Amino acid sequence: MRDPVERSGEPIGYTLFRPQYIVYLEKERSRMNFGFLLFDDLEELDLVGPWEIISIWSRHFNGPTDCLMIAESDDPVKCYNGMIITPHKSFADAPTLDYLLVPGGMGTRKEVKNKYLIDFVASQAETCRVILSVCTGSFILHSAGLLKSKKATTHFSRLDNLRNLKDVEVVERRFVKEGKVWTSAGVSAGIDMALELIAEEAGEETAGKVQLYAEYYPAGTRYGTAHKEPQAPGYIKN
Amino acid sequence: MRDPVERSGEPIGYTLFRPQYIVYLEKERSRMNFGFLLFDDLEELDLVGPWEIISIWSRHFNGPTDCLMIAESDDPVKCYNGMIITPHKSFADAPTLDYLLVPGGMGTRKEVKNKYLIDFVASQAETCRVILSVCTGSFILHSAGLLKSKKATTHFSRLDNLRNLKDVEVVERRFVKEGKVWTSAGVSAGIDMALELIAEEAGEETAGKVQLYAEYYPAGTRYGTAHKEPQAPGYIKN
Repeated sequence: MRDPVERSGEPIGYTLFRPQYIVYLEKERSRMNFGFLLFDDLEELDLVGPWEIISIWSRHFNGPTDCLMIAESDDPVKCYNGMIITPHKSFADAPTLDYLLVPGGMGTRKEVKNKYLIDFVASQAETCRVILSVCTGSFILHSAGLLKSKKATTHFSRLDNLRNLKDVEVVERRFVKEGKVWTSAGVSAGIDMALELIAEEAGEETAGKVQLYAEYYPAGTRYGTAHKEPQAPGYIKN
Repeated sequence: MRDPVERSGEPIGYTLFRPQYIVYLEKERSRMNFGFLLFDDLEELDLVGPWEIISIWSRHFNGPTDCLMIAESDDPVKCYNGMIITPHKSFADAPTLDYLLVPGGMGTRKEVKNKYLIDFVASQAETCRVILSVCTGSFILHSAGLLKSKKATTHFSRLDNLRNLKDVEVVERRFVKEGKVWTSAGVSAGIDMALELIAEEAGEETAGKVQLYAEYYPAGTRYGTAHKEPQAPGYIKN
């Protein structure tokens, strides 16, 4: 799905769309929703980085109509650093999703064994356009059988754990696109992956407008020497 | 407050601290807390970007002991893009804070006139080591009288609105440090500001360890042409 406003070469503008495109866009929008998986002890930015980027796409630039946080039950979820989020939908009430993002965090160590959650991910993945994980969310995708013989990545501190699962080809990149299964490195890397998804689904100009709205032009400072340590991920050392 | 582990020249390690420093560190930690202001229609990443960075500092690298989300009441807050967060404390129950971060978002247009919220910010600011805003959170700081004759910034789309308030010197930077009052540009810029705060309060090595943990090494891709448009913020055009 490409954004026709973008192809028209129209200058950037958040509200001005050529009338002839509106009907088409509304039809596209009505077909799409984006789910974000919630579970206890997820890492907050893994979730909210992509949530923000995709929500800007949704609200301002004709992205998916519905962005939904989905958990096993309707109860609030307590994230690893203490943020408390109430889900929009439980697994039982969730619609068929066009996209599903799985965050990481300490909670994944428990959730990889949660059959109800893994079954939800596996069954949604069958019909999703793209399924994405951030950080250790890749262990959940693995548990759902989605990484077999695929390239994938995870938080730098868990790369060896992922390698030890044998049936996945671990790479040290900011994010990895393997057909409809995308995985990103740790925590903040989900932001980069979300922008790339928009570029692929709606075009680079739309991704650029979302990037500007979010002012995602990081300072690029590298503090101290931690990024030079042996355990730092390959994509910053190489 | 400097992190003595860092000054000791110890190689990076998340759990190994020299025993002689632990007592000292625990004493420092016990004095510090970090508040994050919640209100309806805040922009999610404005809040959760810094929340993640500061929480990593807190949990893994001897940052502030308590990271607290604080709202006018105990009721859940609905953010602009629909995320629902339950606060940890209400204004009435909040402790005296060492740091307070004020996010932006559409909700600020209403909250600048909310006397109870503005009074909370103004009174906490008196004793905070540093008070920080992200995006249009700077309008709340202004309303609390904290930006008089100070340099400050905001989301690129609201720079002129901030200029029109006259008694503040608006600059187009990623973030601005004016003594104990720090303001950042839009949405994602709070992440950069939070790392800089750690560098200033605990040293560059500690900031670097937090940066590595969060894998905040953005790809740096600039999609499309939006960043070249006239309304793009000065810090990316100049």
